[in-house]
Amino acid sequence: MLGIENVASYIPERKIDNLEQADKFGADREFVEKKIGVLKLPRLSEDESVAYACVEAFKALSEKGGVELEEIDCLVVCTQNPDRDGLPHNSAILHAELGLKDECACFDIGLGCSGYVYGLSIIESFMQANGLKRGLFFTCDPYSRILDPEDKNTCLLFGDAATVTLISDSPKYVKAGAKFSTRGAGREALEKVDGKLAMNGRAVFNFALMDVPKQIKSLLESQELDVASIDLFLLHQGSRFMLENTIKRAGIPSDKAPIELSETGNTVSSSIPILLEKRIRDLPGLVLMSGFGVGLSWASAIYKQNS
Amino acid sequence: MLGIENVASYIPERKIDNLEQADKFGADREFVEKKIGVLKLPRLSEDESVAYACVEAFKALSEKGGVELEEIDCLVVCTQNPDRDGLPHNSAILHAELGLKDECACFDIGLGCSGYVYGLSIIESFMQANGLKRGLFFTCDPYSRILDPEDKNTCLLFGDAATVTLISDSPKYVKAGAKFSTRGAGREALEKVDGKLAMNGRAVFNFALMDVPKQIKSLLESQELDVASIDLFLLHQGSRFMLENTIKRAGIPSDKAPIELSETGNTVSSSIPILLEKRIRDLPGLVLMSGFGVGLSWASAIYKQNS
Repeated sequence: MLGIENVASYIPERKIDNLEQADKFGADREFVEKKIGVLKLPRLSEDESVAYACVEAFKALSEKGGVELEEIDCLVVCTQNPDRDGLPHNSAILHAELGLKDECACFDIGLGCSGYVYGLSIIESFMQANGLKRGLFFTCDPYSRILDPEDKNTCLLFGDAATVTLISDSPKYVKAGAKFSTRGAGREALEKVDGKLAMNGRAVFNFALMDVPKQIKSLLESQELDVASIDLFLLHQGSRFMLENTIKRAGIPSDKAPIELSETGNTVSSSIPILLEKRIRDLPGLVLMSGFGVGLSWASAIYKQNS
Repeated sequence: MLGIENVASYIPERKIDNLEQADKFGADREFVEKKIGVLKLPRLSEDESVAYACVEAFKALSEKGGVELEEIDCLVVCTQNPDRDGLPHNSAILHAELGLKDECACFDIGLGCSGYVYGLSIIESFMQANGLKRGLFFTCDPYSRILDPEDKNTCLLFGDAATVTLISDSPKYVKAGAKFSTRGAGREALEKVDGKLAMNGRAVFNFALMDVPKQIKSLLESQELDVASIDLFLLHQGSRFMLENTIKRAGIPSDKAPIELSETGNTVSSSIPILLEKRIRDLPGLVLMSGFGVGLSWASAIYKQNS
């Protein structure tokens, strides 16, 4: 069975000081620190592409060992801000940058904050069905490219990052179950308008608070599990205030659900793998991941340690 | 096992007369008719979105019967020219337009001419792995939006269309085997430059002629089959000249490999399902599909009648 063998990330060193940015916007520093929960926002520079950031994440993965380029037979990129407007697909560009062989399936997935949970299942099941053994699943969605510089709500929130997850037939984690949902009718909460991101923070907050705990509960029940049986909850790091409330409403003990976005901001589909990277060595037994946002789209999955 | 239950398409009624267009470009009418092989090019109007075209394809599918909206639990859109630049994903917009339920997995796939063969396997395997039963796989890539009006090579070639394939657990066809390849290093043959499509026709031709027959051969061998055992070859309808030569080089009898693009042009990921729609009622036993283009990316799959 295929699953997650390892994870690595690239977080640009170039960072915006978010408290200084708050001053510029006339925003309250305490609000930025305590409610948004973000002190630094990493930013790709204009000449740094999605492919560049993904290559950097791949270098970090290589340093952990166990990756031979000639073995890679599948490469997937999840982004809604692809290089060259996505034609060709970003995964083809990355295929060239990494120098992979022809016998490698590559495609892009268009999803936002739910993209990691969806994407893991998409690449795993595609590889399984086609007898592929070692794949790379990248996330990189640099919202800095589409931020409206006048919009403090989004400018104070989103950070750039890239991650790569090695999917293989010698996995540390395999999927035990998952739920996937969509509500296109609510898409105006977070969408691109005239090339810029527009966000209705309250609508996103209400969505997270109402629908995410419900999906988590439904997933746990479907697996005959409860909150107590899960060792670690990795929730999309939307904002501190949204996370605190969603975690509370889902009845999750706060020590099981890390909130860590002060140095990264909301990195869209990269937020969950950034958390996972730090914890995969500890090998918690059961991990529940939940991503939610753009679409509206939300997805939750339970991964169990493969021993 | 999941597979293809039915297929439908939407081809805009508004069409460009390609011979008149040839005159405008000072191109040879005979070349346009015999080599490109395209007399009419369907065009979405500017206010007709990808979602609109997909809804029209869905209406055509509904008329064939057997589709209940409340049963749809997965929706995938393959495009590299999404509405709203793909944020939110086009599948979320379509989810709303069709009025689907929340418990529906939606995502976009970024692929060009290989997108139908890849996408079928992506949605089938994702649904299978997650216990989903009835899904809709849409293709719609309106290149008219990115054509350079000065570029006769592309303007005389690409047409707009949309298709939808119903994936279900009572399929007419199931996948028997597939091969997926990528050569990112050759991507400049077909890419977006400054918002417009740029194509190196000779590079695409050489690629199709060299790599597609090789992949078909390798796929047939992997399944212990040969050309004679396949009843129908559905190849991406790139251009008449490219098809004739690729078919010949692959050793496929011409009566087994339809060339039908005179009324549609090259419709990117929609070309294979447009062919399939016309033939699915005849239920040929073994169908080999092969898509190739942007990326470079190529994919071939054998589908067998599910009896």
